[in-house]
Amino acid sequence: MEPHFSSVLFERAVDELSRLPGVGRKTALRLVLHILRMDMNSVDAMANALVRLRHEVKYCKVCHNISDSDVCGICGDSKRDTSIVCVVENIQDVMAIEATMQYNGLYHVLGGVISPMDGVGPSDLQIQSLVDRVSEGGVKEVILALSSTMEGDTTNFYISRKLKTFTETVKLTVLARGLSVNDELQYTDEATLGRSIVNRVPFA
Amino acid sequence: MEPHFSSVLFERAVDELSRLPGVGRKTALRLVLHILRMDMNSVDAMANALVRLRHEVKYCKVCHNISDSDVCGICGDSKRDTSIVCVVENIQDVMAIEATMQYNGLYHVLGGVISPMDGVGPSDLQIQSLVDRVSEGGVKEVILALSSTMEGDTTNFYISRKLKTFTETVKLTVLARGLSVNDELQYTDEATLGRSIVNRVPFA
Repeated sequence: MEPHFSSVLFERAVDELSRLPGVGRKTALRLVLHILRMDMNSVDAMANALVRLRHEVKYCKVCHNISDSDVCGICGDSKRDTSIVCVVENIQDVMAIEATMQYNGLYHVLGGVISPMDGVGPSDLQIQSLVDRVSEGGVKEVILALSSTMEGDTTNFYISRKLKTFTETVKLTVLARGLSVNDELQYTDEATLGRSIVNRVPFA
Repeated sequence: MEPHFSSVLFERAVDELSRLPGVGRKTALRLVLHILRMDMNSVDAMANALVRLRHEVKYCKVCHNISDSDVCGICGDSKRDTSIVCVVENIQDVMAIEATMQYNGLYHVLGGVISPMDGVGPSDLQIQSLVDRVSEGGVKEVILALSSTMEGDTTNFYISRKLKTFTETVKLTVLARGLSVNDELQYTDEATLGRSIVNRVPFA
């Protein structure tokens, strides 16, 4: 049941919003009705924020994270430890790790993982720029923080080979695998539980 | 857990989108990540549609429905029956009735219903303009298509009293109450079932 509109402006706004992922016609209609009642300045500010985001956002030339300038706020922060580089798949992963407030090093955003099924090869990712970055010196540790999937493992393996020449100066680490915080032992899958036994650590 | 952003532009876009109803931070983040990957022209078109909607949309001076000009497409359509006016609460109701494709008359959008609890009185609604419209002549039927709630009934009663002087020339009707299409008899509430028996119609 498609509603008929008496306003082309209204219809166009609904059409545009329903192009967003997870926004159907009904949701778009509800949003448009809300926008109609919003303060004019607020609507302008929202539209402006979206246009500026798309036109002005940059990617950091060091780590390829989103940035407002050529070098992002993390790479440009003098308080951060520039000797550790954490390799992640995308910018959401940077946000997730930043949210833990447990990491004070830098990042390197690959832009994906190697996935022959999806036609993504090493040259489609920021792997060469990672190698260049490490070869410039100053990096003591590279943390491979990719997803625990076959594609993630493949990418880890590829990167580890690419960084083989630096093994004497650069430590290569991966995220710990084990029980999630609050996980009950009996409901944990075998692979995870197995890894958590093998990689057990001294009781603090 | 609030993600930290390396871009103010990014953060502002997330903030703006999370002001929309039903859009939390996580949804806004997902939308912004999508917008970043969208074609630049599409983002401009979307932003432009929202700005133009808010700045340029008008309300029809006859029926108060949304419109791109002074008189809406429904009131200006010469194929529609101008002798019937359907009184509704809001523009969504116009869309709902239009979607049935069972009505060819005009509308009158009240902009709400009388609700003393919410501080909405008759003067806050487009009731006087309805009376003016009827008194200009040409209207043979006014359909009261308000919600079947206490506020709707109160508003129906108020309007019927206001239109009392026209009872000889203007027929006042309300929407039929009864079983919903596909409703099973045993699960229908008593009030609805009772009305559907009292208001039974000849078997077609």
